[in-house]
Parts: sequence; structure tokens; C-alpha cells
Amino acid sequence: MIKSTYCDKKQQEFHSITDLNQLSEYKDDPNAFLWVDLHDPSKEELAKIGEEFTLHPLALEDASHEHQRPKIEEYDNFYFVVFYTVKLNTEKGVLEVREIDLFLNKNYLITVHEHPIDELKEIETRWTRNVQQLNWGMGILLYSFLDTIVDGYFPVVDALVDQTEDIEDGLYTRKGGLHEHDTALKLLSLRKQFLALRRIVTPQRDILNVLTNRDNPIFDEQINVYFRDIYDHISRLADTVDLYRDQLSSTMDANLTVASNELNKVMRTMTAASIILMVDSLIAGVYGMNFVNMPELKWEYGYFIVIALMLLLTLIMSLFFRKLRWI
Amino acid sequence: MIKSTYCDKKQQEFHSITDLNQLSEYKDDPNAFLWVDLHDPSKEELAKIGEEFTLHPLALEDASHEHQRPKIEEYDNFYFVVFYTVKLNTEKGVLEVREIDLFLNKNYLITVHEHPIDELKEIETRWTRNVQQLNWGMGILLYSFLDTIVDGYFPVVDALVDQTEDIEDGLYTRKGGLHEHDTALKLLSLRKQFLALRRIVTPQRDILNVLTNRDNPIFDEQINVYFRDIYDHISRLADTVDLYRDQLSSTMDANLTVASNELNKVMRTMTAASIILMVDSLIAGVYGMNFVNMPELKWEYGYFIVIALMLLLTLIMSLFFRKLRWI
Amino acid sequence: MIKSTYCDKKQQEFHSITDLNQLSEYKDDPNAFLWVDLHDPSKEELAKIGEEFTLHPLALEDASHEHQRPKIEEYDNFYFVVFYTVKLNTEKGVLEVREIDLFLNKNYLITVHEHPIDELKEIETRWTRNVQQLNWGMGILLYSFLDTIVDGYFPVVDALVDQTEDIEDGLYTRKGGLHEHDTALKLLSLRKQFLALRRIVTPQRDILNVLTNRDNPIFDEQINVYFRDIYDHISRLADTVDLYRDQLSSTMDANLTVASNELNKVMRTMTAASIILMVDSLIAGVYGMNFVNMPELKWEYGYFIVIALMLLLTLIMSLFFRKLRWI
Amino acid sequence: MIKSTYCDKKQQEFHSITDLNQLSEYKDDPNAFLWVDLHDPSKEELAKIGEEFTLHPLALEDASHEHQRPKIEEYDNFYFVVFYTVKLNTEKGVLEVREIDLFLNKNYLITVHEHPIDELKEIETRWTRNVQQLNWGMGILLYSFLDTIVDGYFPVVDALVDQTEDIEDGLYTRKGGLHEHDTALKLLSLRKQFLALRRIVTPQRDILNVLTNRDNPIFDEQINVYFRDIYDHISRLADTVDLYRDQLSSTMDANLTVASNELNKVMRTMTAASIILMVDSLIAGVYGMNFVNMPELKWEYGYFIVIALMLLLTLIMSLFFRKLRWI
Amino acid sequence: MIKSTYCDKKQQEFHSITDLNQLSEYKDDPNAFLWVDLHDPSKEELAKIGEEFTLHPLALEDASHEHQRPKIEEYDNFYFVVFYTVKLNTEKGVLEVREIDLFLNKNYLITVHEHPIDELKEIETRWTRNVQQLNWGMGILLYSFLDTIVDGYFPVVDALVDQTEDIEDGLYTRKGGLHEHDTALKLLSLRKQFLALRRIVTPQRDILNVLTNRDNPIFDEQINVYFRDIYDHISRLADTVDLYRDQLSSTMDANLTVASNELNKVMRTMTAASIILMVDSLIAGVYGMNFVNMPELKWEYGYFIVIALMLLLTLIMSLFFRKLRWI
Repeated sequence: MIKSTYCDKKQQEFHSITDLNQLSEYKDDPNAFLWVDLHDPSKEELAKIGEEFTLHPLALEDASHEHQRPKIEEYDNFYFVVFYTVKLNTEKGVLEVREIDLFLNKNYLITVHEHPIDELKEIETRWTRNVQQLNWGMGILLYSFLDTIVDGYFPVVDALVDQTEDIEDGLYTRKGGLHEHDTALKLLSLRKQFLALRRIVTPQRDILNVLTNRDNPIFDEQINVYFRDIYDHISRLADTVDLYRDQLSSTMDANLTVASNELNKVMRTMTAASIILMVDSLIAGVYGMNFVNMPELKWEYGYFIVIALMLLLTLIMSLFFRKLRWI
Repeated sequence: MIKSTYCDKKQQEFHSITDLNQLSEYKDDPNAFLWVDLHDPSKEELAKIGEEFTLHPLALEDASHEHQRPKIEEYDNFYFVVFYTVKLNTEKGVLEVREIDLFLNKNYLITVHEHPIDELKEIETRWTRNVQQLNWGMGILLYSFLDTIVDGYFPVVDALVDQTEDIEDGLYTRKGGLHEHDTALKLLSLRKQFLALRRIVTPQRDILNVLTNRDNPIFDEQINVYFRDIYDHISRLADTVDLYRDQLSSTMDANLTVASNELNKVMRTMTAASIILMVDSLIAGVYGMNFVNMPELKWEYGYFIVIALMLLLTLIMSLFFRKLRWI
Repeated sequence: MIKSTYCDKKQQEFHSITDLNQLSEYKDDPNAFLWVDLHDPSKEELAKIGEEFTLHPLALEDASHEHQRPKIEEYDNFYFVVFYTVKLNTEKGVLEVREIDLFLNKNYLITVHEHPIDELKEIETRWTRNVQQLNWGMGILLYSFLDTIVDGYFPVVDALVDQTEDIEDGLYTRKGGLHEHDTALKLLSLRKQFLALRRIVTPQRDILNVLTNRDNPIFDEQINVYFRDIYDHISRLADTVDLYRDQLSSTMDANLTVASNELNKVMRTMTAASIILMVDSLIAGVYGMNFVNMPELKWEYGYFIVIALMLLLTLIMSLFFRKLRWI
Repeated sequence: MIKSTYCDKKQQEFHSITDLNQLSEYKDDPNAFLWVDLHDPSKEELAKIGEEFTLHPLALEDASHEHQRPKIEEYDNFYFVVFYTVKLNTEKGVLEVREIDLFLNKNYLITVHEHPIDELKEIETRWTRNVQQLNWGMGILLYSFLDTIVDGYFPVVDALVDQTEDIEDGLYTRKGGLHEHDTALKLLSLRKQFLALRRIVTPQRDILNVLTNRDNPIFDEQINVYFRDIYDHISRLADTVDLYRDQLSSTMDANLTVASNELNKVMRTMTAASIILMVDSLIAGVYGMNFVNMPELKWEYGYFIVIALMLLLTLIMSLFFRKLRWI
Repeated sequence: MIKSTYCDKKQQEFHSITDLNQLSEYKDDPNAFLWVDLHDPSKEELAKIGEEFTLHPLALEDASHEHQRPKIEEYDNFYFVVFYTVKLNTEKGVLEVREIDLFLNKNYLITVHEHPIDELKEIETRWTRNVQQLNWGMGILLYSFLDTIVDGYFPVVDALVDQTEDIEDGLYTRKGGLHEHDTALKLLSLRKQFLALRRIVTPQRDILNVLTNRDNPIFDEQINVYFRDIYDHISRLADTVDLYRDQLSSTMDANLTVASNELNKVMRTMTAASIILMVDSLIAGVYGMNFVNMPELKWEYGYFIVIALMLLLTLIMSLFFRKLRWI
């Protein structure tokens, strides 16, 4: 699906282009920007756009597949940027990572994406709300674009951080139980999601670094502080992700120690219970012996004394083991 | 809440400004500095100050939110610095990290913070005590400012270090018990606090690095050694934090080995006790058999001999296991 | 086995050279490329080729042994490149790594390899399909060459990733069992394969980096974006390999925790079963005592009451332990 | 305590200065060096020296406190160096780290330290023994100074290395026992000492790096090879410390595996013993049943046959478990 | 022991020098090289050589002690290189590391070593076999020298790799047993040897880097590719060492999991056996009770029924536990 928007710098207006043949008309107009959004384009659509804007076949090839990594590449007549949006599918507990490919130039921005991307609507709203920014050139549009996407990362990271904190709190509050297995697997899953996030966030920081530092003929210099702002946001994300990745390792270790400790507790309970019951059994066994001459057996209250003895020993040993905190 | 102070370089005096409209008057006076402190400012106050001093909207935006990371950014007409103070809430055992944002220039320093910051009063005292330093320009004021904040880190780090050492000493002194669970969680919590500290300290070191190295039109060159001094303090903090972060990992490992060893001890006790009691029970069981022809049963002292035998075996086995140090 | 192909730039045709003596004729023809493929060459063949093309003895020496590492070396009159193809032998679960050595120049490409390399056929097909590229010089041929090889890595990495994910999923789904041993060894084996891959992929990225960046008299400048494309593919591979190497460590930790938890479960079962059975045995033992005066023994239904008592206690304790989730 | 020495370059003689007022006389004499050693100076003494030699207040401030980190700082008229000596307090098993602060210049060396430092006497001896070196200027004195201190590190590192090797050997030689707890704690303590050493050694290497590389107006160029020599010594120390820090981690892991293995052994012993004893008990229990019709009970030698059976079973099972190496 | 060889460039001959006084004669002859090999020299011999060739006292000092680290140092009139040979003492399973110190110049090579070094003979053979290389100057001799030494590393690394692989294979093939203890210690020992190797290999790579890159007045430029060749070999060694160091950590983890799993198995066996035997014992105990009214006791075949019941229960429970794979 191709959707095309024409931004008139002078009039500061956005127009939707319905006839794609007009693209060639507008694309070289110095007083306008062109935004062409390709949602799950067919090979032919992509090829046609590529031809129209003389996009390099390698960049087109990259844009036609998912599973790239974030990157920025300079070609003769345009920049090619691969960026990612992130959503947390709370039902499946899975990160949903969606790629968006950007071809950009002083005069146009072409976006290619396979899946629908919610942020695009928001980006459009933001652009049309700040039409006076059009004078600053393509840079400010790209800023709005990337800023909106990066802002979408924070709730995802926050949700993962909350889950991590919950698990950690769980280690403190619960006593006993067999939660270590589940905790280990939840930690493993979280660690993987942080790793996956990091894999996106770190190279995107590099992209912003390129946009900030390079002497950039496309963007006015005053745009740099804006890109630096996004760079700063991504750095913060990267910091958080690294902090929690690191902390998750420690939490896994702590969980193992907790599991080991649980085992200690079980074994102490077992040891204490076994010893008590075996001592009582031994006494019963002794008086179950068939010796002819066992004086106690003939005592009037021998049986009751022995039962009392058993109870007493049980009590004493229970107190002893309780004092050791084994029971 | 806005609080404004006017420092007269020539007279070497500090004056409080009550009428905010005077700000515009003073802000360009080459013979004075202006310190404007905004405590939890409303959007309007921030916007007004921003307009008055022509602060860049992105910096203003950053200053209106918490949860930035330490950074220094150069704008056309000012530097924007994000710094942090740290307190240890001993009751909750939690680090309290508070952000303070600085806009600074040859002529003014604007500080923005959401929460009350105790260090500010101390900073003011320090300034008014050394009024002759005013001749050195804004640099020396910023030095006092940052130095006071960084000095506040040391008691926090020392407290965390003490807690770490206490836990480690605990590993050596206590014998037995089920402390491994608690120790693991305390170590986990400490590790997190060290990580959180590190996350602040390391980028703040970078800030000082920028202040020390860059050819800095705001500050006199003789100020560099002062910033280098703070840089040195922060480096020391960073070293300590890294040392203990590393050491905490080893302590966690050692704690796990201790837990594993505790289990060994429990199992040895159990094994020894089980074997002794089962041997005695077996003897009792043997003489509880109902064979017609069991000569021992008819012995006069058979019963007593068997009881003595049990006691003897118990003693021998106990000594044996004690020699193995299983009991 | 020597196989030699002559590419006529003008005619855009590929010719097979049967008479090796023609090599000297073609090798300096500016309108042609020569591709000489040596499959498991004898020392003499290699020496002869080396003499014909005046290859440096050190490079020849390297080409005559396997077990090099990926590298690119510039000599006076040629580049020497060591590259690797990778296959997954699914039967043995082993990575098969095969070395291919390239000598290349504006006019010729000499490939040396000990084992048959499937990709070579594909490379040849690709070349002959795009004969018009011949105008771009040797660079585009090398691009096709390396691109084909690197494309062959993706199915291998994907297979390893799938295996890793399967094992991880196994951790979540299975309950009980003694799979931890096998899982640990499978993880160990996977980790080794990722390490082995990394050992190849990372230096190959460096090779592409050299090909991309260096002012390269052999290749036209427009070829750079093609090498950058391969560089990008390899970077993606390296990222994936690193991600999963890291994740495998966590999975190993999680597996250990799972093993530890399994033990907890077994011990709880044992503790619960032992206590129940020992209590019942104790009761039986008590009524097996031979005291003269044991009133219960004479009760009409004493035996049945005791049996009922045992069953009742067994039930109560079973419910209790089930509530604790020990059974 | 202030101790002052005057080195006459021409006469190649060392003189002790008793009257501190002479300091101002000598300090600018181009034909002499002045060494002023301040042992635990009072604030006033330090201030006086500072005034005399116009030392920067920040450097003086640093010199008046311990707990700096090794560093070198260039001031207008002098270098400020913080260095450390290390001793191993074998009784407490604790590293004793002592700070020494140096102010140095072409004409003087001022040393400040809180605790007595044994190396100082040795340094003095070395100086007076090689008086002809005085012609080389301050550099050679500083070399002797630092070299003596760094030489003092080797016995400390060697002692720590020996302890580490001893513990490791202990892992190999001892069998059984409950040493894992102690071993873990000793390893933890050693690791901490290596970390502490590293914290000193690494920045001191940087100091030497500065002294070696920088175009240094104080020192003659031929001195560089001498500082490079100390740099080399420190690098060796740093290597050793890193090697053993790394190795200690593995040793801790191995110790945990040993502990885990010990547990395996105990549990096998227990399992084997339990099974044997329970089988025997079961047999005794069977013949303790009160059935009216139990033919074996009436056999003449029934009892002895059963006892023999028990012994036989015990023997067979013992051999079986021994074959499994469980006993 | 001093052994001296004189290489005549023109005649391309090697002559042994018996009279050490001739050294001064030959050492400045531009048409010759001098190789002086000092095996465990006395202080006097070293001093004499030092004087003859005006070697710097610091380099001489370094050469007179072992336990340096690999390094290259440039002095005014010579280079000082510390290099290491490595042997695996298979009996003790210990790496034998031997130091060789080189002083070298356009005209001479002086080697100092404490222990006999087998490679020296091989080096000499290689030199005399390729006398025509003498025209290339000292560089080619140094190349032969270092190349021979580095070639000696490969069998050592291969042997360590084989041992590592053997241990890993052992993890897969063996079932049960108590090998984890030994495996852990073997892994620990291997890890240490890899660490020790790495400690030598990495700085030696730096030496070759210096020899390759630096504009080197001693060596002809065409020698650079030769040093690059050795650099490449060492890089390969370093890669292998790093790969296996990393892999050993994972193997240690896997070994711990295997140990943990072994414990699981033992505990399951024990649990199953205990439950079966305790159930049987309970039945025996029940029928050992002395109730007056126990109908089963009077049954004709009560005893045999109960024995059959026990066998049946044992069978059922055995099958059940076997199905759980606990036995």
C-alpha cells in the first residue's frame, strides 16, 4: 500500500497525493517535501519507487527483507536508515520488534515497512501540528519521526523493569515453596528480552551519533541539538537495559542460592524428623525383643512408662531441633 | 519556588532579589553573577525563565522532567548540566537519588530541581564565606557547587562499603544456621545499589572530564585544577564502586559454596545418625524374631548383654563418625 | 585439480581454459580476467602457479596448509585473502569449516582449497548470469564470491539458533525427569559451535572492513557499497552469534537452577514419604512390644482400630504434605 | 616531623639541614637539590612548607588526607604524585597500604606521609651510595625512590601467589573433609587482596607511563629508560595480579564442584548403608511376625540360617556398592 | 657458557669464534654478523659482553634475571627483546616456560638464557641451510629465530587442546561415577596453563606488531611480510588460547550441572529404595503386633499371603519407579 504526502514549505500545508504519477513532478521541487509511505509493498511497487527516485539496488534489496539490523548508510543521493519500533505483547510475554526502513534526502522521505506501525499516525499528527517547522528542512521531520519511535521504547523498558523488580521482590517476600524453577525461567526470559532490546538500542544509538556528528549537508546545523536529544534518550535506554541485564545475572545467582537454601531446609527437616522417629522406633523395637528375662516387660505400668518416655524424648528432641531451627 | 541571588563582583557582596522583574536588569551586567534557583517550578515559571534567558526549548524540556542521566550539553549561549545528589535512606535501605539541572553561563547560574536538596544551603554558605573568589568568575562558583555535591557521595559509599564488609565478616564468623538465604538477598540488594551508584558516578566523571579538558571560554584556565580535583574525587568513588561490585560477585559465589557446605554438614549428620540408629534397630529386630530355637533369648542376662552391645556399638560408631567429623 | 576460466570483458563471455600454458598469455591481458581454481593442488601445481603469477612464497606457504585464520594481506602485486565456508553436519552435530584461499589482482583470481566447496559452482553460475557486470572489474566478481559464501552462513546460524531455542523451550515445558545432564551437554556443544563460528565471523568482518575502507587500487569506488553490504551481513551474523553465546550462558545457569530444583522436589517427596512410613512403622512397633500389661492388645477391635489409625494418620499427613506441595 | 636533606651537586655530598629557615636559602640554588620529608606533619607545618615552596592549596589539601588514589598532577611550578607502599601483615592476613605524597621539581622533592615508611631509609642509603648520579638531576633521584617502592611489591605479590597456589594444591591432595567452607573464605579473602593490589598497581602504571612518555622539562631524556624500567616492573605486577584474580574465580568454581561432589559421596554412602540395613531389618521384621503358621520359625536352625542369610546379603550388597564405588 | 658465531655476508659462511677477544674485531665489520650466545653466564661474563658492546646497564640487569615478561625495548644502539619458549612437561603436566633475552643490532645478535634451549640448535641449522639469506641483513636471521620459537608453541597448544577435548568428551560418554571431582581439578589445571600461555602469547604478539609496523632502520622493508607472518601465527595461537579459555569456563559449569544431576540420580535411587523397603517393613511390623484378635495371624496361609503381598508390592513399586526412571 502506497500512501504519499506532499508538504508545501511556503504554504506550510500538507497535501495527500492520490496520483502516484505526480511523484516525479514533486520530488525535485525545492519548495516541498515528499513523504512516501510503503506498507508491505509488492516487489513491483518497490521497484517502481526505486526507479523513480533512483535508489541503489542494494538499499532496495535491504528494504525488501526484514531482519536487518539498525544501520545508517550514505549513498550518493540519499541516506538509507533502518530503524525499529518495539512493542510488548503482554499476552505472550514477547517483544514485538518491527522494522521500518527509511530513504531520505533533502526533498523526500520514503518509508518502507512490512507490518502496520502505530507510531506513523502519531508522527503525521505531530508534523501537521507543527507546520511552521517545515522551514527547518527535512531534519526536523526526521527528528519528529525518530523521536516518536524512541519515545515508544520507554513504556516497554519500564514494563520489563517492573517485571524484573517484581521477581526480585518475590525472592525477598516468599518463604519456602518451589518457585525457584519458575523464577529461573522467568529471569531467563526477561534476560533474553533485555538482550533483544539491547541488540536494537545500541546500534540505534550509533545511528543518532552519526546524525549528530557528521557534517551533514541535508540537515541544518541547528537540528543537531535535536538529534543529540534523541541520542540522549537512547543512551538512557541503553543504560537501563545494561543495568538490568547485569542485575538479572545476580538475581539468577541469588535464586540459585535460595534454591540451595531451600534444600538445606528440607534436609534439616528430614534429618530431624528421621532421628526423632528412629529413636522412638528403636525403643519400641527394644521392647519388642523376645528375651525371657526382660524385667520391664512385667512391670505393671511398663508400657505406659515407655510410651511416656517416647513422648518425652520426642519433645526434648523436637525442642532441640527447633532451637537449631531445623524444624 | 523561585529564589534569586545577585552577586556583585566589585563589592563582593551577595544580594537577594525579591522582584523577579529585576532579573533582566542584572542578567547582562558584566560585574555581577545571577543565581536563580527553581524548586519544583510550575510550567509557567520555567517557561518565563526560559524566555528571559533565551534557553533552548529542548534543554527546558529536559529540565522539566526527572529521570535524565548525568550529562553536559553545550548550547549556543549556555551549558546545560544534569547532576545528581545521593542520600542513603537507612530506614528503607534504599538509595535516594535526586536530580539537579544547571543552566550556566558567564553571567548566570540557573538551578532546577524537583525535590528539596540539602546541599544547596551548604553551597550558599560556602559561597558567601569565600566572596573574594568572585573575581575568578563563574568557574569557582561551579566548582564549589559540584564539589559540595560530590563530597556528599562519600558517606553514602562508605555506608554501603561497611554493609558489604559486615556481610563478608558474617560469612567468616557464623557457623551453621540458615543465613545464606538472607545473605544472598542482602548481597543482591547491595549489588543493585552499587550498580545504581555507578550509573550516576561514571557519566558524572565524564562531565568533569569535559569541564577539565575543553578550552572553555566561560572559565579561567586556573580553574582547571579545581575541576581536576573533583574529577579525581569522582574517579576514586568510581574505583571503590567497581571494586565492591566485583567483590560482591565473589561474595555471592562464596555464599553459595557456604550454603552447599552447610548441606554437606547436614547430610553427614543425617547419614551418621541414620546408620547408628538403624544398626541398633536391626539388633532389636533380630531379637524380636519369633524363632523357637534362639539360644540367646533364654540366657539369664541376654537382654542386658544386648542393651550393652547396642550402647557399645553406638559409642564406637559415634566415635568413628566424630573422627570423620560427620557429627 | 586445476580448473581455469577466462572472462573476456569485451565479449562478456566466459571461456574454459584447457591448456594451462595459455595462462601466461591471458594473465596480463587488460581486457580479461582469469580465474584459476586449485582443488587440493599438489605441491608442484602450487609452485608452478606461484611462479607463473610471481606469488610471494609466504602466501603460497599459507595457502598450502589449512588451519589459518581469516585474514587479508596486501602484497606488492596481489592481495591474499583467507576465507571460510561453513556447513552444519546435522548427523554428527558438528560444524564443518572449510578454508578457501584467494590470491587476487586486477587481472586474476586464484582460489585454493583442500576440500570440494559447494559454493563455487553457485558462484560460477552467478557470474555467468550477470556477465554485464564484468565491466566493473574484479571487484564485482569478488563481491559475488564473498556474498555467496556469506549467504551460506545464515542457514547454519539459523539452525544453531533453532536448536538453542528448542532447548530453552524444553526447560519451560518438561516437568521432572533427568534431562539436565543432557541439556547441559547440548548447551555446551552449542556454545562451542557458536564460539567456533564467532572465531571465523569476527575476523571476516575485519576483512570486509578493509575491503570497504581502504583506498583500493584494484576495485572501482562504486564497488564499496557492495562490500559494505557483505560487511553488514557479517555484522548481523556476529550480532546473532554474540546474542546467543551470551544467552547460552544464562540458559546453562537456568538449567543448573532447574537441576537444583528437581533435587528439592525429590528430597521433599522422600522426606514426606519417609515421615509417613516411619510414623506408621512406629505405631506397629509400639504394638509389637511385649509388655504384659498393654490394655489395647486385649481389646476386641484393637487391631482394627490401630490399622484405621494408621490409615487416618497416613491420610492426614499426605494431605498436609500435599498442601505444602511436597508430594 | 620534618627532616630535611641538602644534596650538593658539585661536591656530590648530602647534608642534613637542621635549621628549617635555611630551606628558603637552598631551594632555588641550581647546584643543589632539597629533600624535605614530612612525617605526619601538623597542619601548621604543612602550611608553612606550602607557603615556602608556593605549593597549590589543592595539592596541599590532598597531601593532608590519606585515601587518595595513585595519581600524578602537573601544576605550574611542580608535579604532585601520590604513590603507595604495600606490606603484608601476615598475622592478620591483611594488606597494609600506605600513602606517600610527593611534590617535586627540578630543585626539590617534598615527601609527605602519615605513617612511618620503611622504604625511605633504604632510599636514602641508595642515594648516598650513588652520589655521582646527582649530575643527572632530579630524575635519577625520583627513579631510585619509585624503584625502591615498587621493588617492595614483589615479595607481597609472591606471598599472595604462594597462598593461592597452596589452596589450589589443597584442592588436589585432600580427600573428603569439610574444607570447602574455609577454602571458599580464604579464596574470597585472597581475591579481595588481589583486587586491592590491582587498585593501586594499575593507576601507578599510568603514573609511570606519564613519566616515561611526556616531554618532561624536569628530567633529562636519558632518564626515560629508567622510568620505562619501573613501568615494566609494574606491568609485570599487574599481569600477575590479573592472572591470579582470574584464576581465583576458576578455583572458586572448582571448589564449589568439589563441595558438590563431596555431597554426592556422602549421599551414596548413606544410600548404600540405608539399603543394606533396611534389607536386614526387613528380614528380621518378617520373622518377627506373629503368624501361627510360619514353618521356618520351628526349624531347628532357622534362626542361624536367617542370621547367615543376613550376613550373606550384607556381604553381597556391600560388594555391589563397593563395585559402584558408593562405599 | 659463551658460544660465538661469525657470519660472513660476502662469503656466505658461518665461522665459530673461539677466541673471545676477536669479538671486538668483528663486531663493527659491516660485512659480517656476530651471534653471541650466552648460556647461564656468570655476572662477569655478562658484564664483559655488556662493556664490549656498550649495552645499557638496565637491559643487562633485565637479562641477568628470569621472570621478565615478553617485551621489546629500543635503546640508542640496540633493541632489547625478551621472548619465551614453551614446552609441555607431560610427566608433571606442567608448562615449562623458558626465557631468552636478545640484544640485537644491524651487526650482532646476543642471546642470553639461563636454561638450555633446544630451539637454538634448530635455529642454527636453519641459518646455515639458507646462507644466501644473509644478504637480507639481520632481519631475516631474527625472523628465522622467532619463527622457530613460535613454531614450537603449536604442539604445546595442540596438546592442551587435545586434553580439553578429551575431558569434554568424557562428560558425554561416561555415565555415573564420581569423576566430577577429578574433572574439575583437571579443568582448573588446564585453565591455568591456558592462562599462563596467554600471558606469554599476547605480549609477544605486541612485540611482533612493533617489528612489523615500526619504521625500522635495522631491517629491510621486505622483511616486514616475514614478521607479519609470525604475527599471524601468534594471533592464531592467541585465538585458540582465548577460545579454549572461554570454553573451559563453560565446561566447568557443565561439569557442575553434571555433578548436580548425579546427585539427583542418587537421591532418586535412595528415595525409591527407601520407600519400597519401608513399605515392606511396615507390613512386617503390622503383623508383628501382639493384638489378641488379629484374624490374619491364624489363617493357614496368612504368612505366605503376606510374603506374596510384599513381593507384589515390591514389584509394583519397582515398576512404578522404573517408569519414573528413578531406579
